[in-house]
Amino acid sequence: MTKINENYLNLQGSYLFAEIARRVASFKNDNPEAKIIKLGIGDVTKPLPGAVIESLHGAVDEMAKEETFRGYGPEQGYNFLTQKIIDFDYTPKGIQLDLDEIFISDGAKSDTGNIQEIFSVDSTIAVTDPVYPAYIDGNVMAGRTGKINEQGKFEKITYIPCTAENNFIPQLPDEKVDMIYLCFPNNPTGTTVSREELKKWVEYAKKNQAVILYDAAYEAFIQEEDVPHSIYEIEGAKEVAIEFRSFSKVAGFTGTRCGFTVVPKEVMGYTSEGDAYPLNKLWNRRQTTKFNGVPYIIQRGAEAVYTEAGQKQVKALIDYYMANAKMIKEGLESIGIKTFGGVNAPYIWLKTPEGMDSWAFFDKLLTEVHIVGTPGVGFGPSGEGYFRLTAFGNREATEEAIERIKNQLKL
Amino acid sequence: MTKINENYLNLQGSYLFAEIARRVASFKNDNPEAKIIKLGIGDVTKPLPGAVIESLHGAVDEMAKEETFRGYGPEQGYNFLTQKIIDFDYTPKGIQLDLDEIFISDGAKSDTGNIQEIFSVDSTIAVTDPVYPAYIDGNVMAGRTGKINEQGKFEKITYIPCTAENNFIPQLPDEKVDMIYLCFPNNPTGTTVSREELKKWVEYAKKNQAVILYDAAYEAFIQEEDVPHSIYEIEGAKEVAIEFRSFSKVAGFTGTRCGFTVVPKEVMGYTSEGDAYPLNKLWNRRQTTKFNGVPYIIQRGAEAVYTEAGQKQVKALIDYYMANAKMIKEGLESIGIKTFGGVNAPYIWLKTPEGMDSWAFFDKLLTEVHIVGTPGVGFGPSGEGYFRLTAFGNREATEEAIERIKNQLKL
Repeated sequence: MTKINENYLNLQGSYLFAEIARRVASFKNDNPEAKIIKLGIGDVTKPLPGAVIESLHGAVDEMAKEETFRGYGPEQGYNFLTQKIIDFDYTPKGIQLDLDEIFISDGAKSDTGNIQEIFSVDSTIAVTDPVYPAYIDGNVMAGRTGKINEQGKFEKITYIPCTAENNFIPQLPDEKVDMIYLCFPNNPTGTTVSREELKKWVEYAKKNQAVILYDAAYEAFIQEEDVPHSIYEIEGAKEVAIEFRSFSKVAGFTGTRCGFTVVPKEVMGYTSEGDAYPLNKLWNRRQTTKFNGVPYIIQRGAEAVYTEAGQKQVKALIDYYMANAKMIKEGLESIGIKTFGGVNAPYIWLKTPEGMDSWAFFDKLLTEVHIVGTPGVGFGPSGEGYFRLTAFGNREATEEAIERIKNQLKL
Repeated sequence: MTKINENYLNLQGSYLFAEIARRVASFKNDNPEAKIIKLGIGDVTKPLPGAVIESLHGAVDEMAKEETFRGYGPEQGYNFLTQKIIDFDYTPKGIQLDLDEIFISDGAKSDTGNIQEIFSVDSTIAVTDPVYPAYIDGNVMAGRTGKINEQGKFEKITYIPCTAENNFIPQLPDEKVDMIYLCFPNNPTGTTVSREELKKWVEYAKKNQAVILYDAAYEAFIQEEDVPHSIYEIEGAKEVAIEFRSFSKVAGFTGTRCGFTVVPKEVMGYTSEGDAYPLNKLWNRRQTTKFNGVPYIIQRGAEAVYTEAGQKQVKALIDYYMANAKMIKEGLESIGIKTFGGVNAPYIWLKTPEGMDSWAFFDKLLTEVHIVGTPGVGFGPSGEGYFRLTAFGNREATEEAIERIKNQLKL
């Protein structure tokens, strides 16, 4: 009798977005004329930059001719792309990386979900709370978390609350943990941490032989000078951290699919005998066995992000979304709603007014001004009483949304 | 201390192709003028069909405009592609499938490697021997196989020998196994099985509540009328089988990356309490959590395979490679080398002459006629004394290779 992986039964249904869809559908049904604006999902709306389009066309043409056709490529990605990533994203920050320390992938969701496979099932986990659900789900499937309790917490996960009370700065756990998921600029809160705070985590990881899994998918949205773009800006981080990045939000690749993961050769895990073993070697084996690599055409598209034209176009995209973010943030603040994030990230995290819970505010926003956002509690228990709006809408819709909130929301 | 997944330490190094590369490099070094022809790796050489190229360009243009731009798509794939697969690959064979029974992916290697994740770690496995290594490696990583012994067999895997002695027809195992990997047309042997033989497996699976993992990546190469293209041609197979397919070899997608997996809603696994649980639901959750979906552009490319022009072009590609296969097979037979496969598959599996072992024949072929193939023993213990040549080379190289084998190989 073939038994299933029963850890899957511990997964939470994709309750959050299903429940949002249910409430929106029900509202639409009762109010067919309402013009709903969605500022909930983190998907981009602007098309791919011109330089990317041109490069994609060029690569398609290469695939049409026997002399330039490409069959199997390296699962880890082509060096033409990896080298550009090193030259543009890391070398200017004083970070030295080798070509074989970068793994091109179909995006940060799969990589942050799959990375846990290279660790033992009894490794312990810490996540910040609220948190991007993919970090947790992969671990649930692997049997590393146990069951969820009534407070919405998995038995074996250490949750590190990040709320207005601690200024969204995660505090080091009292206990020893092995795998630490950090995400800055943060999804969902849009907040960042300083080099000094990150340094504490690198030191903790070194002391405890822990590994930091650092999701920097939103680093390109950083506007302020002193905010770290990469964890490797912290001395010694190459010994304890894996970093995830993505072209999804930066260059509009949510439907085009490309990202990458950095696994420096110095980062070690340990055998049960206590011998150090390079995680780079394990991830390389995982990717070459269980992943087929990113299409050649798509890698050529991503490469164009690093051309002069590509860099300008990507900057214009980011400026566009960050202008939305500013508008949302200022609009909310102008009517007395307290906001966080939105300065170095395309996410605005707001404190629901008058202590409403996240879902009550969701209903209020939907019914009074026909705007859909994401209840903070959907990202974890510490998200209760918060709410996420995203800056990825188009300008007109975002403007109208803010006008409605300012003029029609009953506060 | 972060412990690694020590199951990885049981993996065999990617010894086979590394060793081939080492021997070829050493030969080249000693014989810099030798013109080496590679008939070893199963990678295609002809460019993408015109219909695919046109469709890829069209999709790139859609991504350039806000009105037609696509962001996040369903991780399971777009219905425009899934519907074509049903209409062209299944309905004509009398197989009914729903849209949500097909999962578009980046190819059959990842899917056959990843599918084991939805089963319990103590499920038992059977593979045919010789075998495509990806089926085993995913299971090794998950801890389902134990260690490898001196005969090159993992402790906990049931190996089902397929050799000339049994006409490459896998026999039902005496013991009960849970997960059964079958691949027809077979890689590496190029052989197929009849409906009657497949029926025995479906009955075995039903009786033992086992699951058949059926790799049909080479089905498009089938030339003979009575060979089954899909396991679902067998009555009742939808209750016990998952089928894997790929555009890689059919349409030249080895560098473009698209395939799909069929998980009928009737296929069940069981909880430890013995309750049936649909595998479709588990694979859906696995893919939506740990995979980002195939790029929109690429899915539009794959869709074009099913246009009238695309179907003609794909047939021409297959005819081209199968003409190579015929030439290789007939050339070898003409000098008394016994061959298998090559009729309904692009692989020719040959019995090494005079009882040479696989590696000895590799060296003979390389040094005497400067041709690189793949030693059969690299695919498993029952591959010893066999050797694989592929039909994916271009015509001229394949012709020259066969001329050399016929005229210069010392037999």
